[in-house]
Amino acid sequence: MSSFPKSLETDTPEDGFALAVKLSRLGVKAVQPDMEVLHRLRPIYSEDSTNLIASSHVIAVHFQTISAANKGWV
Amino acid sequence: MSSFPKSLETDTPEDGFALAVKLSRLGVKAVQPDMEVLHRLRPIYSEDSTNLIASSHVIAVHFQTISAANKGWV
Amino acid sequence: MSSFPKSLETDTPEDGFALAVKLSRLGVKAVQPDMEVLHRLRPIYSEDSTNLIASSHVIAVHFQTISAANKGWV
Amino acid sequence: MSSFPKSLETDTPEDGFALAVKLSRLGVKAVQPDMEVLHRLRPIYSEDSTNLIASSHVIAVHFQTISAANKGWV
Amino acid sequence: MSSFPKSLETDTPEDGFALAVKLSRLGVKAVQPDMEVLHRLRPIYSEDSTNLIASSHVIAVHFQTISAANKGWV
Amino acid sequence: MSSFPKSLETDTPEDGFALAVKLSRLGVKAVQPDMEVLHRLRPIYSEDSTNLIASSHVIAVHFQTISAANKGWV
Repeated sequence: MSSFPKSLETDTPEDGFALAVKLSRLGVKAVQPDMEVLHRLRPIYSEDSTNLIASSHVIAVHFQTISAANKGWV
Repeated sequence: MSSFPKSLETDTPEDGFALAVKLSRLGVKAVQPDMEVLHRLRPIYSEDSTNLIASSHVIAVHFQTISAANKGWV
Repeated sequence: MSSFPKSLETDTPEDGFALAVKLSRLGVKAVQPDMEVLHRLRPIYSEDSTNLIASSHVIAVHFQTISAANKGWV
Repeated sequence: MSSFPKSLETDTPEDGFALAVKLSRLGVKAVQPDMEVLHRLRPIYSEDSTNLIASSHVIAVHFQTISAANKGWV
Repeated sequence: MSSFPKSLETDTPEDGFALAVKLSRLGVKAVQPDMEVLHRLRPIYSEDSTNLIASSHVIAVHFQTISAANKGWV
Repeated sequence: MSSFPKSLETDTPEDGFALAVKLSRLGVKAVQPDMEVLHRLRPIYSEDSTNLIASSHVIAVHFQTISAANKGWV
């Protein structure tokens, strides 16, 4: 799993959100490592509202995890 | 990711809820950055009850994260 | 977002549950503010078991948030 | 919302689980209060595996909330 | 609800996971207590990938609850 | 449930993520232990965007549990 972050700590909520996006992609890649398949699927799910909302949901779960690790950046 | 909030801290639960709505949209944009596609999809998902409830679900997850960062505004 | 509660603190779990129901509706309204569309959709989703269970799920997430803010009303 | 419990505290995890089942039903009733409609839907969703798993999911979320209020009954 | 565990505390994460599997089944049984119906549905959902992933999701939520009750077995 | 980890503690977030992937698979196997069926389903769900996102969601929930057990690796 190359390029996995060394830490969940980030300077800002924005960086934490970017990390959440990354983790949601790494989750998909863990199940389907074949980049060719993923590229073929991309135009399908990225233009389907149900899939987009579901992807946003996964990002939200990871962002919750990362926010907790950063104590809400407070 | 322009206009990302500097902090998850908000003065009121209402402001926290507005931030949760914003984060759920930023999650969708992170997966589909093409605003033209998003505008094309909008009338579809915003008039579909399953998609509306799913969107409300993502907002709920982000609101939970934001509430925790604000210690429930207590 | 009119009529948003000033606080997540409630006297009882029952009041907290009512607030969770309200927040789940405010989430839907944030995505689809047109009350006419919402009224048109209502008979569809409120008689569809999948939509009803999904709505109950969103209420459950908000109730978890509100319970945490109230320290479980213990 | 008649018969709502006064407290989330229960003597045992089993009682907490029963309360979670109750809250998941109260969530459905909050969206669809018409008992006639609910009785008509029951044979549909209770014999559909997707709906059964989704219902079990809502119970799981409420059980998590109740377990936290009871500090895991430890 | 016979055979419900007296406690969420387990010796190991593995035992906690087995308990999570059990709770997810008890959730389904709470909604559909007729074992004959459940046995009829089993070959359908256990060979359907969407249902399998959804079941795994419910187990994950219960495992999170049980892990919290056991303070992560640390 | 052979090969279940003895502990949720891991040295790094990356190891925690790999464990989350493993737990999501063990959840599926708990519901469908027949490896032949699972191998037959694999090409179906691993090339279906909805299933991939749902799998990524389950991984996210387990990662949240594991992160909490490791106090966010901070």
